[in-house]
Amino acid sequence: MGFETLILLCTITCCCLAQKPGNVSSPNIIIMLMDDMGWGDLGAFGQPSKETPNLDAMAAQGMLLLNFYTANPLCSPSRAALLTGRLPVRNGFYTTNGHARNAYTPQEIVGGISKDEILLPRMLKKRGYFNKIVGKWHLGHRPQYLPLEHGFDEWFGAPNCHFGPYNNSVRPNIPVYRNSRMLGRYHEEFKIDKKTGESNLTQMYLLEGLDFIQRQAEAQKPFFLYWTPDATHAPAYASKYFLGKSQRGRYGDAVMELDYSVGKILSLLRHLGIDNNTFVFFTSDNGAALMSGPSESGSNGPFLCGKETTFEGGMREPAIAWWPGHIREGTVSFQLANVMDLFTTSLALAGMSPPDDRTIDGMDLTPVLLHNTVLDRPIFYYRGNELMAVRLGQYKAHYWTWSNSWEELKKGINFCPGQEVPHVTTHEQKEHTMEPLIFHLGRDPGEKYPISVLAKEYQDVLSWISPVVEKHRSTLVAGIPQLNMCDVAVMNWAPAGCEMLGKCLKVPSSQPSKCDWPH
Amino acid sequence: MGFETLILLCTITCCCLAQKPGNVSSPNIIIMLMDDMGWGDLGAFGQPSKETPNLDAMAAQGMLLLNFYTANPLCSPSRAALLTGRLPVRNGFYTTNGHARNAYTPQEIVGGISKDEILLPRMLKKRGYFNKIVGKWHLGHRPQYLPLEHGFDEWFGAPNCHFGPYNNSVRPNIPVYRNSRMLGRYHEEFKIDKKTGESNLTQMYLLEGLDFIQRQAEAQKPFFLYWTPDATHAPAYASKYFLGKSQRGRYGDAVMELDYSVGKILSLLRHLGIDNNTFVFFTSDNGAALMSGPSESGSNGPFLCGKETTFEGGMREPAIAWWPGHIREGTVSFQLANVMDLFTTSLALAGMSPPDDRTIDGMDLTPVLLHNTVLDRPIFYYRGNELMAVRLGQYKAHYWTWSNSWEELKKGINFCPGQEVPHVTTHEQKEHTMEPLIFHLGRDPGEKYPISVLAKEYQDVLSWISPVVEKHRSTLVAGIPQLNMCDVAVMNWAPAGCEMLGKCLKVPSSQPSKCDWPH
Repeated sequence: MGFETLILLCTITCCCLAQKPGNVSSPNIIIMLMDDMGWGDLGAFGQPSKETPNLDAMAAQGMLLLNFYTANPLCSPSRAALLTGRLPVRNGFYTTNGHARNAYTPQEIVGGISKDEILLPRMLKKRGYFNKIVGKWHLGHRPQYLPLEHGFDEWFGAPNCHFGPYNNSVRPNIPVYRNSRMLGRYHEEFKIDKKTGESNLTQMYLLEGLDFIQRQAEAQKPFFLYWTPDATHAPAYASKYFLGKSQRGRYGDAVMELDYSVGKILSLLRHLGIDNNTFVFFTSDNGAALMSGPSESGSNGPFLCGKETTFEGGMREPAIAWWPGHIREGTVSFQLANVMDLFTTSLALAGMSPPDDRTIDGMDLTPVLLHNTVLDRPIFYYRGNELMAVRLGQYKAHYWTWSNSWEELKKGINFCPGQEVPHVTTHEQKEHTMEPLIFHLGRDPGEKYPISVLAKEYQDVLSWISPVVEKHRSTLVAGIPQLNMCDVAVMNWAPAGCEMLGKCLKVPSSQPSKCDWPH
Repeated sequence: MGFETLILLCTITCCCLAQKPGNVSSPNIIIMLMDDMGWGDLGAFGQPSKETPNLDAMAAQGMLLLNFYTANPLCSPSRAALLTGRLPVRNGFYTTNGHARNAYTPQEIVGGISKDEILLPRMLKKRGYFNKIVGKWHLGHRPQYLPLEHGFDEWFGAPNCHFGPYNNSVRPNIPVYRNSRMLGRYHEEFKIDKKTGESNLTQMYLLEGLDFIQRQAEAQKPFFLYWTPDATHAPAYASKYFLGKSQRGRYGDAVMELDYSVGKILSLLRHLGIDNNTFVFFTSDNGAALMSGPSESGSNGPFLCGKETTFEGGMREPAIAWWPGHIREGTVSFQLANVMDLFTTSLALAGMSPPDDRTIDGMDLTPVLLHNTVLDRPIFYYRGNELMAVRLGQYKAHYWTWSNSWEELKKGINFCPGQEVPHVTTHEQKEHTMEPLIFHLGRDPGEKYPISVLAKEYQDVLSWISPVVEKHRSTLVAGIPQLNMCDVAVMNWAPAGCEMLGKCLKVPSSQPSKCDWPH
């Protein structure tokens, strides 16, 4: 079925559905997680091209969160944190192969999300929620790590990034799954034209989301939709309807198609009459990937550096909460918040408490969402196994600074292009644990002017932040690192379902070794 | 009279005024020009502190212009361009003392705005407008250059920046005028506490504006109010009601007080029932003065560098047009526009054509404002006597690049702090006239990725822009430079009215010499 047909079918079905579902005790929950989208990519956040009318309207109808963070400036650990409510250093989504290295789940990764971690859908299931993930998973691609093993009831999407095309000998193309079985592979059944940037994937993800929402509304059963399209991750893509439409090039085309899709989803909720009963949260997994250049990466607005770094550009995310009738329209929140809060908040909305047998880093944001209160709490900025920085109030203290190594810089890799702040965007891992670099993010959101260590303000802030950091460090029990080992034998050679499709590839012999994490 | 009394008096008067003025044929015009405020300083433009609710509401009720420029990245030439509709290189607000040097009107300046230039208020007067300037003038402080000599009927404010305090021997304190006579001097009668940043000047400027609007509404006579407070120019100041209120420090306090004032002015227009008959435009004279550090300067959002430079951060300005019933609410314009257009547009609103005996650079924006059309036109980026860059559509070609000299950089002066783009933010005046640096501002608003000269796109753009530049250069007739000579004898020793106040100072002997313009 072509997706034009699908759109038509959906339109017809949507229009025919007149019956409103009855009141349910727990609201539906939709988390829309973008891939490498930056704080400065939306009109509501100051993007000068102003090409996100649907997201801007969503903000105007809901709450804009200006101080919302990820837990790690890279995709896999950020997503693991969101779904477990725990820092990657606790849930195992980090590495000890090197100091302060970002690790993720490429095809060679042996590990994935541990069965001992409790993911949000598994919790929600206990309260009768039906759970679907649409899009990128990125918490491990071996069978035991896949979404349906961790509480999701349905999945349409891929376990890894949409890199390729590969020739299937040295490296297999990434599979696309329907639930527990592969449907095909990227660049084979699921096209992405790397030259033109054309792909229908966002349209497919949109339709999967719309179809799921409609089915659940009809079933009058609470649902959790984790909608994670990856069009803004390099190589950026868009369907032919959006290619060339943006002032910003291909990346902007991808943003426009995602914005359109968000509009369609919110529209359907309204049309189904379940908008007052559906909590929707929009954010991104980490900052814009500035190293990918101007056509393939987004904007971090006024913030320093981007993805892979613990400067604001790597960690601060666009965030919008929407829940008509509950969240007052047009509100702006300055609450320090992060992706892990979505775990605890979703549970609270479902009337549940988080697991009490482990440390949960996320906090319940419902007072913030419903009453716009502001609660004190720190934000921890981790890179791999190291606490790089901490924010408290308007102050941020860097205990370690690092952009990327001199060796990589010489090869043209640059996480802070055009942004060199002396002694801040250092190209070696620079330790400041005895005398942290401190910034006031209100006066200096771009982290360009460290406060003098001789200033009273510096000493006051240090004596405020130090005990918080000390307590965090001394009580932290790190999880078993899951991202240390790599092996060509674990790649997506023969995903479940490959036999039926005749798409199984020969598995090479195992060659396990420590993964190399250069950043 | 203390200003608390003034506020009270004004509140009473406002509340008592019930009679609406009759319809006038030409709308009232208010131009609100900020000082060194940056593109990224307003919530509507992505400021992460979101502390400008009145300006954000003004944008929501009117039109946000995302591609609005100044004519020069420094205050005096920018203001001269706004009021004459002509580039500084035409109206004489430049220097030939050096190449590509920004010049302005410090106290030593001998020159000012030429009597041969026709300023906006002089034109509007012919149509019966009554004109007032409230705030900083900056087009020359010698008697023949002052506002009432150039078409303004009233003035409250100062001819120069609010620097000081001076000891009145080597350098006099800056006078504050009421119309053609001084009322007192900064730091003497008009306090600015440099230590705390406290000053009531913005409140005074607000009250002067409110009082003028009310008087004109009562007189049922069209008016032009040129409202130019300078609280955001370093040293930033605010009244005690606003000091310490912002997340951003003293600069943010100043912004909040200006935002409050804009709200009060728009409120009064509504209260008087003349909002549908008053065109209000809000913008700034140049980009944020990043060299002033985090507490004394604003934000240029995602743009490169700031004040004094011809990168986007120095030249692109926040801009909002407001005219209920005429400009559709919530519109966004991508029109390339600039401060000189305010001259031509204001004349068009008053039913007048610009003078036909000279080149006018401003264009009539009324089709843009009323119908949101987009008209092709170039933007010229000048620094002193040199055309540094040109924008056409999304493309910007730099013919010369320069941030600031190595000598100044070594002294700690930096126009691009934390933003070094190799071969772009050059510390020498670098010529690219044969092969301009070209950027696509849609994909790359931060001017970090010059398009390769080998790309077809580069050649296409060059052949599009070159004839435009050639035509501009070959037809340009430069005006007589007014900002070449300096002399200690011309400083504000004995402004008109000083005798009555006993505030005349001894004029030293004349020592004319060429002014030194290091940038």
